[in-house]
Amino acid sequence: MDRITDVIASIKPMNEKAIMEARMRQDNLTKPQGSLGQLETLSIQVAGIKGTPRPRIVHKVIFTLAGDHGVTEESVSAYPSEVTPQMVYNFLRGGAGINVLARHVGARVVIADFGVSSVLQKHPELKDKKINMGTRNMTKGPVMSREEAIRSVEAGIELVEEELPKGIDILGTGDMGIGNTTSSSAIAAVLTGVDVATVTGRGTGLDDEVWRRKVEVIQKALEINRPNPDDGIDVLSKVGGFEIGGIAGVILAGAKYRIPVVIDGFISGAAALIATSLSPQTKLYLIASHQSVEQGHQIILEHLDLKPLLNLDMRLGEGTGAALGIFLVEASLKILDEMATFSEAGVSEKI
Amino acid sequence: MDRITDVIASIKPMNEKAIMEARMRQDNLTKPQGSLGQLETLSIQVAGIKGTPRPRIVHKVIFTLAGDHGVTEESVSAYPSEVTPQMVYNFLRGGAGINVLARHVGARVVIADFGVSSVLQKHPELKDKKINMGTRNMTKGPVMSREEAIRSVEAGIELVEEELPKGIDILGTGDMGIGNTTSSSAIAAVLTGVDVATVTGRGTGLDDEVWRRKVEVIQKALEINRPNPDDGIDVLSKVGGFEIGGIAGVILAGAKYRIPVVIDGFISGAAALIATSLSPQTKLYLIASHQSVEQGHQIILEHLDLKPLLNLDMRLGEGTGAALGIFLVEASLKILDEMATFSEAGVSEKI
Repeated sequence: MDRITDVIASIKPMNEKAIMEARMRQDNLTKPQGSLGQLETLSIQVAGIKGTPRPRIVHKVIFTLAGDHGVTEESVSAYPSEVTPQMVYNFLRGGAGINVLARHVGARVVIADFGVSSVLQKHPELKDKKINMGTRNMTKGPVMSREEAIRSVEAGIELVEEELPKGIDILGTGDMGIGNTTSSSAIAAVLTGVDVATVTGRGTGLDDEVWRRKVEVIQKALEINRPNPDDGIDVLSKVGGFEIGGIAGVILAGAKYRIPVVIDGFISGAAALIATSLSPQTKLYLIASHQSVEQGHQIILEHLDLKPLLNLDMRLGEGTGAALGIFLVEASLKILDEMATFSEAGVSEKI
Repeated sequence: MDRITDVIASIKPMNEKAIMEARMRQDNLTKPQGSLGQLETLSIQVAGIKGTPRPRIVHKVIFTLAGDHGVTEESVSAYPSEVTPQMVYNFLRGGAGINVLARHVGARVVIADFGVSSVLQKHPELKDKKINMGTRNMTKGPVMSREEAIRSVEAGIELVEEELPKGIDILGTGDMGIGNTTSSSAIAAVLTGVDVATVTGRGTGLDDEVWRRKVEVIQKALEINRPNPDDGIDVLSKVGGFEIGGIAGVILAGAKYRIPVVIDGFISGAAALIATSLSPQTKLYLIASHQSVEQGHQIILEHLDLKPLLNLDMRLGEGTGAALGIFLVEASLKILDEMATFSEAGVSEKI
């Protein structure tokens, strides 16, 4: 836990001077003030994160973390667990949604095994951060030990630190793990205080009967485990997931190294709840890429006080929303950096 | 009018075979069906437009049309009319918002003078389509003659046709014209049937008093001119604008040449109302890039049965929203074209 405590202690507030300078520049660009809406506020946030009034982005990285979930024993998913490793191989071959969208925005994808329940073939581009062979079934007790929960967050921090030498100007988070919407709903219920049925959606496509079972499974897990809402590590160990802990670590590391963190959808949102419960200041470093179809996601974003950039009825995960979000952040920074000011362009100001 | 009639007659329905094939492919890609939401439906629409199940995009063009409005005499704008030519020069120097975002998405920008009220300096990248030196004041009679209205739409068609040899796989529309939200609100009121106050927003930033004057000015213009809602050319000539007629022409040409048309915000929306009143089938070729802050825009999009891709509180115009929309369309087509299918990737399907 010392490692996590150290990272949290090193997370600083925004740079107010850079924020002020970026805002002044936005207000002098050749457009009515505020007319680029969220693109303006985004650029100002990133200026505050990076501590410079005209930040630029070159190296874009999406971290996609995979892990399996014991709760799939309870038949809460539309897909079998074997899809988790199959999709990891798909990522490594470049055939998945995240590969396509990352290429489109010029981002590299870092794929990591945080706890897939089978032994994966070695691959030069697969990071081995396996904490264990999948989590345990949350209806029968904690899904992992407290040590494993700590270790998963630490491994997420390491993952970012290992990539730093190659350059990370912005990062996106992503997940793969059959059963992880169940885990994320459980986390959301505990950390937002909203009831289970409200934060529980239909995952990759469930009918009414399976959805009801999913809600009952989560309710049972919360009764048996009694996660402590004031202790993010406890929540993670009781009803979380290895990849969710890992994403929480990625988020904390982003905040430590003053890298804007573009979170994906529901699972990344649950990880952000864990990260911000450990370090509330981390919220300032977060950018919500999109509003997922998963009904609990909106509740998470409201709890985190984040306004999503996109609402395209997406619910794939992997970091696909984050990739599109990275593109919009980059657009906002180019506006801030490249547009002419009124005086440069000789354009008259407001009457 | 013969030219416009010919274009309208040549606009064909979607290619249903390509739509079916694209949908089948989307359903076989390695993701839960429908999990990429609007990215999936977008790609299927473009397949239908282009008549091929895996369309690709290379040449992206944004048409930004400028024109002045006589109604600015009534003090309905926050900026003076001289800003229109000043911004055209800013476009030509590459310093405006549209230049930055077009570069970001790899689109070229075609700048055209459709009726700026001053004589612009010649420039190799400025298309001269000037219909007249700005429109007349709508509170005193029609803003232009019927012949000028027809000519403005024809000139928009020509603009696209002149660019065709360089390649246009997708096009975006944009506008510049101080006073053109007043004109667009008037068009929206006539063609959607919604009352003036509801479709009238605050343009580039008006206070309550100026907003009330703007509403009164439009109401007066509609009483004096009585535009015929069943005749788009009549509406354009009574309360429209040269750049708005031009954008309507660009839209019609897009539909004729089976090019997806990504419309920008409120002004492009008003032009789309004119275009679809002339040719309802044109709707199928439209993609709404974003939901503008201008309150009448939502009413226009509902009337056109379009769901915007983005909602970033933008209200700049120029084609800035269209540029971002083009990026998302391209993302959707890459998903359709580049993702692996379940069988290609050896991934298990739904239980």
